[in-house]
Amino acid sequence: MNLIDQLRAAVGTANVLTHDDPGADLSPWEQDWRKRVRGKALAVVRPGSTDEVASVVRAVAAARAAGQSVSIVPQGGNTGLVVGGVPDASGTQVLLTLQRMNRVRAIDPANLTITVEAGCVLQNLQKVADDAGFLFPLSLGAEGSCTIGGNLGTNAGGTQVVRYGNTRELCLGLEVVTAQGEIWSGLTGLRKDNTGYDLRDLFIGAEGTLGVVTAATMKLYPRPAAQLTAWAAVPSMDHAVQLLGLAHQHLGAGLTGFEVMGQFALSLVDKHYPQLRVPLWRDTPWCVLLENADSENEQHARAQFETLLERALEQGCVTDAVVAENLSQAKGLWHIRESITMAQAEEGHNIKHDISIPVSRIPTFVAETDALLAREIPGVRMVDFGHLGDGNLHYNVQAPEDADGQAFLRDWEERVNTLVFDQVLRHHGSISAEHGVGELKVHKLPTYKDPTALAMMRSLKRALDPHNLLNPGRVLA
Amino acid sequence: MNLIDQLRAAVGTANVLTHDDPGADLSPWEQDWRKRVRGKALAVVRPGSTDEVASVVRAVAAARAAGQSVSIVPQGGNTGLVVGGVPDASGTQVLLTLQRMNRVRAIDPANLTITVEAGCVLQNLQKVADDAGFLFPLSLGAEGSCTIGGNLGTNAGGTQVVRYGNTRELCLGLEVVTAQGEIWSGLTGLRKDNTGYDLRDLFIGAEGTLGVVTAATMKLYPRPAAQLTAWAAVPSMDHAVQLLGLAHQHLGAGLTGFEVMGQFALSLVDKHYPQLRVPLWRDTPWCVLLENADSENEQHARAQFETLLERALEQGCVTDAVVAENLSQAKGLWHIRESITMAQAEEGHNIKHDISIPVSRIPTFVAETDALLAREIPGVRMVDFGHLGDGNLHYNVQAPEDADGQAFLRDWEERVNTLVFDQVLRHHGSISAEHGVGELKVHKLPTYKDPTALAMMRSLKRALDPHNLLNPGRVLA
Repeated sequence: MNLIDQLRAAVGTANVLTHDDPGADLSPWEQDWRKRVRGKALAVVRPGSTDEVASVVRAVAAARAAGQSVSIVPQGGNTGLVVGGVPDASGTQVLLTLQRMNRVRAIDPANLTITVEAGCVLQNLQKVADDAGFLFPLSLGAEGSCTIGGNLGTNAGGTQVVRYGNTRELCLGLEVVTAQGEIWSGLTGLRKDNTGYDLRDLFIGAEGTLGVVTAATMKLYPRPAAQLTAWAAVPSMDHAVQLLGLAHQHLGAGLTGFEVMGQFALSLVDKHYPQLRVPLWRDTPWCVLLENADSENEQHARAQFETLLERALEQGCVTDAVVAENLSQAKGLWHIRESITMAQAEEGHNIKHDISIPVSRIPTFVAETDALLAREIPGVRMVDFGHLGDGNLHYNVQAPEDADGQAFLRDWEERVNTLVFDQVLRHHGSISAEHGVGELKVHKLPTYKDPTALAMMRSLKRALDPHNLLNPGRVLA
Repeated sequence: MNLIDQLRAAVGTANVLTHDDPGADLSPWEQDWRKRVRGKALAVVRPGSTDEVASVVRAVAAARAAGQSVSIVPQGGNTGLVVGGVPDASGTQVLLTLQRMNRVRAIDPANLTITVEAGCVLQNLQKVADDAGFLFPLSLGAEGSCTIGGNLGTNAGGTQVVRYGNTRELCLGLEVVTAQGEIWSGLTGLRKDNTGYDLRDLFIGAEGTLGVVTAATMKLYPRPAAQLTAWAAVPSMDHAVQLLGLAHQHLGAGLTGFEVMGQFALSLVDKHYPQLRVPLWRDTPWCVLLENADSENEQHARAQFETLLERALEQGCVTDAVVAENLSQAKGLWHIRESITMAQAEEGHNIKHDISIPVSRIPTFVAETDALLAREIPGVRMVDFGHLGDGNLHYNVQAPEDADGQAFLRDWEERVNTLVFDQVLRHHGSISAEHGVGELKVHKLPTYKDPTALAMMRSLKRALDPHNLLNPGRVLA
């Protein structure tokens, strides 16, 4: 039986799509989210259970052992930003989509845990948690399409990391199909388990290169009694960092969001989406969006917030501020923040970065790097925004106003990346804070990653996936 | 040059101790904390820098490659409870103590991080953080002697895990000497870094079997404005779990401690330390100690606590409660909790467990296992206490009142362990919640750990330490 027939036997004929099938359109799985790469799969396979995933992996492993050049690319919601979840152009890769495995297996209120399959869409997971009276705090732009399996594979960050951590910190246990097609049943709901090496965190963030995550037990939190959002004008990045310190001190764990947005980024939202009514941006180089979640009530949250902002105004680290009066205003403020991504696309192509730097070094990093870029590319415009609470900036470089965007990308992308990443290295930062490595940054690691770390990564890959069956060429070249 | 001379060359003659040295006493490093095992080291080596650690590892690796049967046991404060940090009896192991490497390298207030060497005593780390106006939240009984390196090696838990997580969750970056004697400089202070596999968490909890942790960058938190402690009588374990849910809901992230203590455990404190004045224990099967850290002020914390306790009294999950009036009363309550360990020792030998179970299953686990043990050993007494907020019980089995403790251990330890661990497995728990595996539980893993997980652990050990140089026989047999 050839591989395609074996795959059909494993998951059912209807769940194996190939280019030979009349009328089959595989592009939703072959085209990456940012439309940078269009691959060609040998087949798209849609297993419906963990056992089926294991059968698929065993079938492909056997074909490879028999000399066929085949491999597996696991995929969640296909919203990744680093080309880590689409097949390459060779036509030899089996695209394994987890989308059919989307059940919530169990919810344990007293243990504050929920067990879900990898294909569960993040927004559905949030909703199931909410319906049960709890908060599942992972939240990011793609939440309507991305899956928890993809979030785990990339260790996704998002907007509440300052309080709840990345996806890694929200996960207690995993179920994984190994490169040998075995099933590791590690779906523990335990907060403490010191019986050996931490396999869970090795698979999280491995982008499907060490094993296929099929299910996970995630933490739940009590739903806050109130949530408030404020928007503040700050006179400099130094002041933004100072405000962050004050917010930590005054709100403690109530601080659930701390986003910074540069004036040019906000001007693009104002220009392309004037109906969104961006507040306070005209007279200040930076705005900050803060969120405060309160376990008591709205009145208390508001008093807390006002004390913080008064102190910040006194100290001069805030020049003006508004606090959302109701949920719809709060959503409006977040919507502005989230519209930066679209607004910059409306303005034309830009060179995107997803970097992190120790918070204390961010003001210097931004000042230095802005100046370097301005010297190199006269008229360059910086779309600078991000999760300052986590030291994570989306430090994007937009073409000068009159430039041709396509030509700008072609001529400058490599040079700008080098300049920015060298600065990141100098300030002890990371060239991929929350998006991952994928194919896009894999060739950067030898330059920007500690060589001993890289050597250990290679050893671990060889140990768990000796035949390079799983997502080859991603994370490690 | 023989190995001992090479070690002397690496760290200085004064920092290599052997049994051949006149008057040398190696017992502080050879004898484990619980005095279960007395090993014999080839030498005790005390490096003063990371480079010296690397030289020591390379020297021992070379000797091993040349056919000598030597290996390395890294040690922190030697307070471990599972025989993971002392040499075996062979006289062939180099005991590598990190105690001289005890500097605080840097503190970064805006980034909320502190970088310390592995030999820094936990209490000193807490103090340096406090002096700088921050909280380092790891806290456990041995904090006056244990080191942060040991805490990392065992992924130590302690009393504030319900809010701040285990040592793993408090660590951002590591510096590690590999089994090849290379230095991995992974001392990042970043909250987000997705540039490859999570090496950090692989070394944390590996008990020195994969590499030697020499330094770490740890998270700091704003120091709470107030901290309050309450002591509540609860009528059953079910009610204790219900109280935990209420506490999560009302205090949110303010809940920093939630300890449960059984009546017999408290009776032992009352009996052996009557001056401690244990409250409320006579008329209730369980007491709970709760801690609430507040970012506002004491008045607010007290109001919060009172609301919680009123609600709990209404719902019948608390029958009586006291809130400490001041810091000294609060310390007194914690002292009672921490005195259980000594009180049970005063009473005689017992069989100790450090288990975790999903919180929702703890009432059933305790009822079932208590009954099984009572049937098997008439008159057996249960010293049951622990970190209920984390699902972690120290479920200790004390000899019947008139029994000979030594004989009880001899006759029953193996049988009681099997009975308790089988119950733990049945309830999806862990046989080592916060103490680790060491030598003490290494032979239990094949029975109680998922076989696929164990196979992956062996692969990882072979990948990073192929010659089994580091702490052989611990974690993996």
